[in-house]
Amino acid sequence: MKRVYLDYASTTSVDPKIIEDMMPYLKDDFGNPSSPHYYGQKARKAIEDAREILANSISAQSEEIIFTSGATESNNLALFGVARALREKGKHILISSIEHHSVIRPAQELKSMGFDVSFIKVDRFGQIDPQDIKSAMTPQTILVAVMHASNEIGTIQPIKEIGMITKAHNVLFLVDACQTVGHLPVNVNELNCDFLSFSAHKFYGPKGVGGLYARKGSRLSAWLLGGDQERNRRASTHNVPGIVGMGKAIDVCRQQLPGEMQKQTQLRDRLIDFVINNIDGSRLNGHPSQRLPNNAHFSFEGVDGEALLMSLDMNGFCASMGSACTSGSLKPSDVLKAIRLSDALALGSLRVSLGRWSTQEEIDAFAHQLKKSVEQLRQ
Amino acid sequence: MKRVYLDYASTTSVDPKIIEDMMPYLKDDFGNPSSPHYYGQKARKAIEDAREILANSISAQSEEIIFTSGATESNNLALFGVARALREKGKHILISSIEHHSVIRPAQELKSMGFDVSFIKVDRFGQIDPQDIKSAMTPQTILVAVMHASNEIGTIQPIKEIGMITKAHNVLFLVDACQTVGHLPVNVNELNCDFLSFSAHKFYGPKGVGGLYARKGSRLSAWLLGGDQERNRRASTHNVPGIVGMGKAIDVCRQQLPGEMQKQTQLRDRLIDFVINNIDGSRLNGHPSQRLPNNAHFSFEGVDGEALLMSLDMNGFCASMGSACTSGSLKPSDVLKAIRLSDALALGSLRVSLGRWSTQEEIDAFAHQLKKSVEQLRQ
Repeated sequence: MKRVYLDYASTTSVDPKIIEDMMPYLKDDFGNPSSPHYYGQKARKAIEDAREILANSISAQSEEIIFTSGATESNNLALFGVARALREKGKHILISSIEHHSVIRPAQELKSMGFDVSFIKVDRFGQIDPQDIKSAMTPQTILVAVMHASNEIGTIQPIKEIGMITKAHNVLFLVDACQTVGHLPVNVNELNCDFLSFSAHKFYGPKGVGGLYARKGSRLSAWLLGGDQERNRRASTHNVPGIVGMGKAIDVCRQQLPGEMQKQTQLRDRLIDFVINNIDGSRLNGHPSQRLPNNAHFSFEGVDGEALLMSLDMNGFCASMGSACTSGSLKPSDVLKAIRLSDALALGSLRVSLGRWSTQEEIDAFAHQLKKSVEQLRQ
Repeated sequence: MKRVYLDYASTTSVDPKIIEDMMPYLKDDFGNPSSPHYYGQKARKAIEDAREILANSISAQSEEIIFTSGATESNNLALFGVARALREKGKHILISSIEHHSVIRPAQELKSMGFDVSFIKVDRFGQIDPQDIKSAMTPQTILVAVMHASNEIGTIQPIKEIGMITKAHNVLFLVDACQTVGHLPVNVNELNCDFLSFSAHKFYGPKGVGGLYARKGSRLSAWLLGGDQERNRRASTHNVPGIVGMGKAIDVCRQQLPGEMQKQTQLRDRLIDFVINNIDGSRLNGHPSQRLPNNAHFSFEGVDGEALLMSLDMNGFCASMGSACTSGSLKPSDVLKAIRLSDALALGSLRVSLGRWSTQEEIDAFAHQLKKSVEQLRQ
């Protein structure tokens, strides 16, 4: 069966061009970058080259990039690392109510350790009002965390405006940019953020590698402890092939960015138009215009989301209910609750995320199967 | 220049057979194991198959294996996870004085958080006396950590005997088996341990992936927080190609284990004999017989270890001073201080670690260059 993958927000395949670039570091140039000899030096050069490419891609400096195993670790590092470094200064943390679990759970853990955590509400499109951040700040606030764009409903946040507020108040600002790095222009200076996390496997790089941008001078304690890699900010032997692949991946994304944004926005809107106009009792969740080019998130009245996914899957179409990290859970997602969607609609939802290899034929075939599946499930 | 790699304890190249097995999971079968659809299920099956192979290789059960980004993370998870889970029971931790920094630094961090950490001394060969563990235990002791074999001086510890003591006292026991998994027979039941960490890149698997064995029923809080992967014990999207590669790598090691142990022991002893008999003022560090088949660790009187490494490297031989994770530091290593080596001898030391592709010709060529370099440096 020919399959159509529409779950790019969950993970992407590695671009074949990138695999070629990773190969030498699996085979002949396999050294440990911490070793001082020939093999170590070659590996060291490879990761420093990748660091420079990554830094440039978000308008950062090389030494501001910390390599990690992925955005979950980056978010844990930022939350626990800032809390540890600044606990004498204050114990208040502000996060949006639609953050990924890799931000929410560390925040809950910090709460159990005596920190005060405030959750900032979103509007019905899933957007934060920057003024709410300003109002919720106290002299004890040490960190604000708001994701760049929702992995579930695709809504893009007013990060720049929030960043202006945190900057003016001298409060550190973490942006989980997992869904935007490689997909939207990301400039850490325009966003006014101090920390920014990303995962290679979300932008056609390998799984198991990611990074945290940490603005020079921002206080951050190490979290993964051991060797003195990454200027003592993250121990563990470097994942050299992964880091090289991530560097190459962001380079390819950067070259293709304007074209991909345009193509995916067009396909996304084509799908949204079809669904809203041809499937009764359907609605689009998330912001109508301030949304990721590749994200469409729907709810269908009177349809069980799990059954819908299964029906689509059996017909060769792979989509998602929301975050892969929380799939298997039968409760309505926290994000959909935060935008005040009813439980019934939340449990009848579907996330469609497009990518580099999506075509109009795929989208059209999917749209028709979706209509068919929804109608069958309602019978 | 033809180069001879003698730093296998630092990292290994990935066996080409293993790269072939990883490829599909970088390319076509790239799904996120947490996704419920076709691609997700294929990826899920791949990591569960790898989990079973890994579990079998150390006589564990599949559900006792937690995939991580490597042994540094595994050790952090074990220390912080046990401390968090059992802090109400007691706050005393016992570790050997020659542990890897990924055990020592988390222990120091726990100390700063109010835990009591005792360091167990080693004898001049770097070995722990199990009775010292017994004597140091208090009713507050919740965890003992002793590495299976030293990454620096190669000494193998009496883990089985220590494990009998911890078991009898109902205290959890962590074994950092980074240098032994894939290199020596490892059976978690014979070793009587509750936790055991390993890294794929130490046994011809890829970098950026490892695991922690956690005996069923052992209390352990999650440390990397976010999604509910790994039965809520370790969040983050699975590194599917890495995990598949690690499974294949341990399988290859298991098949080749008896032959490799014999070959490497023979080459190691050939090198040791040559050095001791032909290079004046040389000594072997670590245990004469209870040592890793692939490890030879020497000190040379009146020689600067850094200069020696550089001389060897310039002649095409890649060895090490000790742990790659602490290279670049000009202080004598803690491990060498723990075996009461003088600073002068510690700073004149050299670790030679052999591996799957080491040959007698390489060892002989190395031995002669070593003699030459040592003599030149003494002039």
